[in-house]
Amino acid sequence: MDEFERIKTFFAPLAGPQGLGLTDDAALLAAPEGETLVFTKDMLVEGVHVPRGGAPAVFAQRAMRTNLSDIAAMGAEPLGYLLGLGLPDQVEDDWVSAFSSALAHDQKAFGLTLWGGDTVRTSDAVTISITMIGSAPEGLVLHRSGADAGDDIYVSGHIGRAGAGLQMALGNVPGGRDEWMKAYTMPEPRIGLGIALRGLATACADVSDGLIADTAHIAYASGLRARLTLSNIPTDSDLPLDRMAAASAGDDYELVFTAAAEDRAAIFTVSETIGVKVARIGSMASPSQGGDQPGIDVLDAHGVPLKIDRSGWRHRQ
Amino acid sequence: MDEFERIKTFFAPLAGPQGLGLTDDAALLAAPEGETLVFTKDMLVEGVHVPRGGAPAVFAQRAMRTNLSDIAAMGAEPLGYLLGLGLPDQVEDDWVSAFSSALAHDQKAFGLTLWGGDTVRTSDAVTISITMIGSAPEGLVLHRSGADAGDDIYVSGHIGRAGAGLQMALGNVPGGRDEWMKAYTMPEPRIGLGIALRGLATACADVSDGLIADTAHIAYASGLRARLTLSNIPTDSDLPLDRMAAASAGDDYELVFTAAAEDRAAIFTVSETIGVKVARIGSMASPSQGGDQPGIDVLDAHGVPLKIDRSGWRHRQ
Repeated sequence: MDEFERIKTFFAPLAGPQGLGLTDDAALLAAPEGETLVFTKDMLVEGVHVPRGGAPAVFAQRAMRTNLSDIAAMGAEPLGYLLGLGLPDQVEDDWVSAFSSALAHDQKAFGLTLWGGDTVRTSDAVTISITMIGSAPEGLVLHRSGADAGDDIYVSGHIGRAGAGLQMALGNVPGGRDEWMKAYTMPEPRIGLGIALRGLATACADVSDGLIADTAHIAYASGLRARLTLSNIPTDSDLPLDRMAAASAGDDYELVFTAAAEDRAAIFTVSETIGVKVARIGSMASPSQGGDQPGIDVLDAHGVPLKIDRSGWRHRQ
Repeated sequence: MDEFERIKTFFAPLAGPQGLGLTDDAALLAAPEGETLVFTKDMLVEGVHVPRGGAPAVFAQRAMRTNLSDIAAMGAEPLGYLLGLGLPDQVEDDWVSAFSSALAHDQKAFGLTLWGGDTVRTSDAVTISITMIGSAPEGLVLHRSGADAGDDIYVSGHIGRAGAGLQMALGNVPGGRDEWMKAYTMPEPRIGLGIALRGLATACADVSDGLIADTAHIAYASGLRARLTLSNIPTDSDLPLDRMAAASAGDDYELVFTAAAEDRAAIFTVSETIGVKVARIGSMASPSQGGDQPGIDVLDAHGVPLKIDRSGWRHRQ
């Protein structure tokens, strides 16, 4: 099929009314009164973010869910997305069909529609660029920069599962758990948790670069020093990574967030209501208290800072 | 420089307040009351849309301006954009610096700011994905689908200049005009014309696939038969392409639009006010009049349909 036929066959059925049937070169949205719109954009390249020759569903799910996770970290609700799809000539219609089916699955699961985009030819690697649009009531968007000294730090889920899944995909972990592989190939964006944290969390980020790196992002943006206690970081007991490696591995797409100490009970009530496990893993301190700069410390059980391999947690390209 | 340093050095200075200093993974926009938001997304791949090793400014300008042209075709005003930038390892900081300078130039020229995006590593080709956001007052967005039988068809500018510029770039046209090369490398999106056509044009598209193809898009979307008179298509007298080739070549980024016959004087008044040449090149007919399907005819001076090479004007990937 040519580009037009592929769009008509595989992508037009995914379009919402904003997409005008994918026949115009643009999408339209009546500006929702009193809402703040949230825009995210993640690119994904075969051989860099997804293994060469990976299943079409893995491309679709990772591209959708990394963006959904960014939307979740802002406390926003996803509305729709634009899809940029670069395909090498050798990609067959079957691949595109499986890819669009996986998109359709996630659209239904997360309540959003396709608004438009572009399909192009690439020389050798499948390249996907999704721009996602979400919204939250004005004034209730979560930021990285809102944490206060004394706030608790929390993280959802189990850290390091995606890192273990990546090691499984690389053949380094024989007999690993299915849920580790699933955490890597089909991460669960914490949309419901993000929405429930509106007005409660003081700062929030998603764990894409790694728990240490993403907590550091909050610390820098808030001008504070984050102090994580390593033994409080929630990991599976049989994880083939130690806690420091788990906290440095990326792609978990959990939420790391801060909240005032007096809201501790409220946070755990939210966690129970939403059905997403949340662990308290540290607290934010004024950098001036220790003469330190904004940044992060990972402490052992005695409160002694551990050495962090900084090269391990810079944002990976 | 690593990814963070490049973002801070070259891209953070381009950011508007919506971009939160490019420190969050998302951009925010307070929904503008009474406005319809317009979203466009074009991808551009080195070796496909821009020659291998092309100047960084050409990448930046073509990526910005193809999106700006889509915004213009909707009668919208550009607000901002998200940038997905995939770079091979061998791309140097000098390249990124020149690229961001060209973006800065176009931001100023067209009144928009950078809101966010993503930078990734690609294996061999610079890959750019821009998502642009614009707005127009509710009910005044231009569509492809609004043409009525009897409407005139117009096009702005000179058709085929970008096609001639491409032939110059390929070394096929010695001694060509600078403005042909410029039409190809730095097209002029017709933002002002699009805005002036609000409430006046009944349908509009930009000339990206070629004048015949894009007029056909309007015809199909409106369920009508477009009839273009070849000799009325505005081309430079010394263009190294004949009129049919010029009307089949893409990338002109002019606007093709329809308007009621009684608005003919108003259209030429707009053209003079804006300072953009507009030519009347045909009219829309009901397909039932000739027992035809929706589509397009290109007529000679005697009104006889000419043969169109359809393979020449399918949307190029």
